[in-house]
Amino acid sequence: MSYNNNVKILDCTIRDGGLINNFSFEDGFVRAVYDTCVGSHIDYMEVGYKSDKKIFTGNQYGPWKFCDENDIRRIVGDNNTGLKISVMADAERTDYHTDILRKTDSVIDMVRVATYAHQVPTAIDMIKDAHDKGYETTINIMAVSLLTESILNSTLEQLSKSEAEVIYIVDSFGSLYSNDIHKLVNKYMQYAKADRKKVGIHCHNNQQLAYSNTIEAIGHGAEFVDATIAGLGRGAGNCPIELILGFLKNPKYDLRPIIECIEKHIPAIKKQNNWGFDVAYMLTGLMNKHPREAIAFLDSKREDYTNFYDTMVNCD
Amino acid sequence: MSYNNNVKILDCTIRDGGLINNFSFEDGFVRAVYDTCVGSHIDYMEVGYKSDKKIFTGNQYGPWKFCDENDIRRIVGDNNTGLKISVMADAERTDYHTDILRKTDSVIDMVRVATYAHQVPTAIDMIKDAHDKGYETTINIMAVSLLTESILNSTLEQLSKSEAEVIYIVDSFGSLYSNDIHKLVNKYMQYAKADRKKVGIHCHNNQQLAYSNTIEAIGHGAEFVDATIAGLGRGAGNCPIELILGFLKNPKYDLRPIIECIEKHIPAIKKQNNWGFDVAYMLTGLMNKHPREAIAFLDSKREDYTNFYDTMVNCD
Repeated sequence: MSYNNNVKILDCTIRDGGLINNFSFEDGFVRAVYDTCVGSHIDYMEVGYKSDKKIFTGNQYGPWKFCDENDIRRIVGDNNTGLKISVMADAERTDYHTDILRKTDSVIDMVRVATYAHQVPTAIDMIKDAHDKGYETTINIMAVSLLTESILNSTLEQLSKSEAEVIYIVDSFGSLYSNDIHKLVNKYMQYAKADRKKVGIHCHNNQQLAYSNTIEAIGHGAEFVDATIAGLGRGAGNCPIELILGFLKNPKYDLRPIIECIEKHIPAIKKQNNWGFDVAYMLTGLMNKHPREAIAFLDSKREDYTNFYDTMVNCD
Repeated sequence: MSYNNNVKILDCTIRDGGLINNFSFEDGFVRAVYDTCVGSHIDYMEVGYKSDKKIFTGNQYGPWKFCDENDIRRIVGDNNTGLKISVMADAERTDYHTDILRKTDSVIDMVRVATYAHQVPTAIDMIKDAHDKGYETTINIMAVSLLTESILNSTLEQLSKSEAEVIYIVDSFGSLYSNDIHKLVNKYMQYAKADRKKVGIHCHNNQQLAYSNTIEAIGHGAEFVDATIAGLGRGAGNCPIELILGFLKNPKYDLRPIIECIEKHIPAIKKQNNWGFDVAYMLTGLMNKHPREAIAFLDSKREDYTNFYDTMVNCD
């Protein structure tokens, strides 16, 4: 029994989980996730988005949509721990010149830029901005399952010249199978290795493949792994961090604090929010579509799955 | 987009699902599963066990523990459909000479003999008995994750000489990873091919890998695939048949009747029974153990996962 010591785990429970409740987690839960990540020796914790307050106005969003420095410090203080703090910045939805402070003024360690292929020039400028301010950076190419080979190649070609240290495969719709993952990791590795970057993996569970695809990616060389406590995340959810720790068998990680966090906090979150595999998500995943129709179906407590199936099969 | 026309799907919703309620499904549900399998053009439906009534006495068991001919015919009549009917017969728990009728007197098409490695001589005699009576037969080697390489080799050597048409890999504890599945399928294929047998796969979902391991097995040559509606089955459940149909993309199968069955019947079954992934099952799967402790933990409505973790980690 051996393990790969190069794999870093990024917990995005609050960031991806925030998508199901407009980032309105109570401080107690955010602090519990932070304490769990510290106690389990997780490498990174992503606390939310750095969204542009001029675009996202009104009172419907909780603090983790914006990750103001004061909000983060209310939870982590000066974060004198081994855990690094990450935020996600969406291309075209972030006032990055203003809202991302210099690293010397922030407790944040890493900025992850999320981009669709058509936004890559903006994303590259965002990476440069964050890098120059002193942060570690990653680039996360969203919805890779929609990209043609030639668009993906040119996207990777451009991003491989950026300052990002990690290029992420993001299966936004949970529609990829293991052979897709193998091909994508191999391709990303070619571009990444040439520029001494690493490859990351972020999966969704629409077809019950989030965890298996994550470990397939690790087997093919991915070294940054996104996961969440109890798989908390939009729609069908993410790769559960408890499964990844069990798989990796790296003695530096400790599973017990995660089990404790699940016991103490997940039942209350489950009462107020929906996430996790459902046949409705399977159908959107199978059809390589955004899960929004399935989310709406389940949020409205509908149970007429056959009608939903017919609608999905017969839409354009 | 292509598909493998050689893969046969066996629905074991009632048989493996029966393990969670002592085989007491109402006729309406059993008939619904039968109608669904016929409508979806599934290849086989397993209706239960042929258990020895001298061993399993008392009133706690429903009819699908024994699968009397009259009980099966009450549901399927003479089964003038394309769906084949299967039963499972456990080695040392089946009075096979008496309880398995001649094929000419039965609506059953296939007898699947389930055996642990130490019961193989009995299993071989059971296969011969069923084969000589006119049935298709398979041999299902249980708990393969506990077997040493040399014991597995000698088991396969013996079983490859039997009349069984299919040799099944059974991940009873849901503890195998994809690389284990690849190695096992390759090994089983060597023994099976020499004697013109096929390889089957039966997975459990303790680590959320039942579906992914099933499609990994298909990719390496397995041609008999066990699955259940909504993953219904003991503990963490089985590979969901709806996911397999989506993956295979074989136009002979129809997903819609399965979605209908899930809509109409699964909510009521869910209200009365527990199955599906849970962290407790993850822990037994990780430790390559029978899920009985996790089943007892969940059946007693316990929520003290940290205590359960400590008990599992510290037991022998």
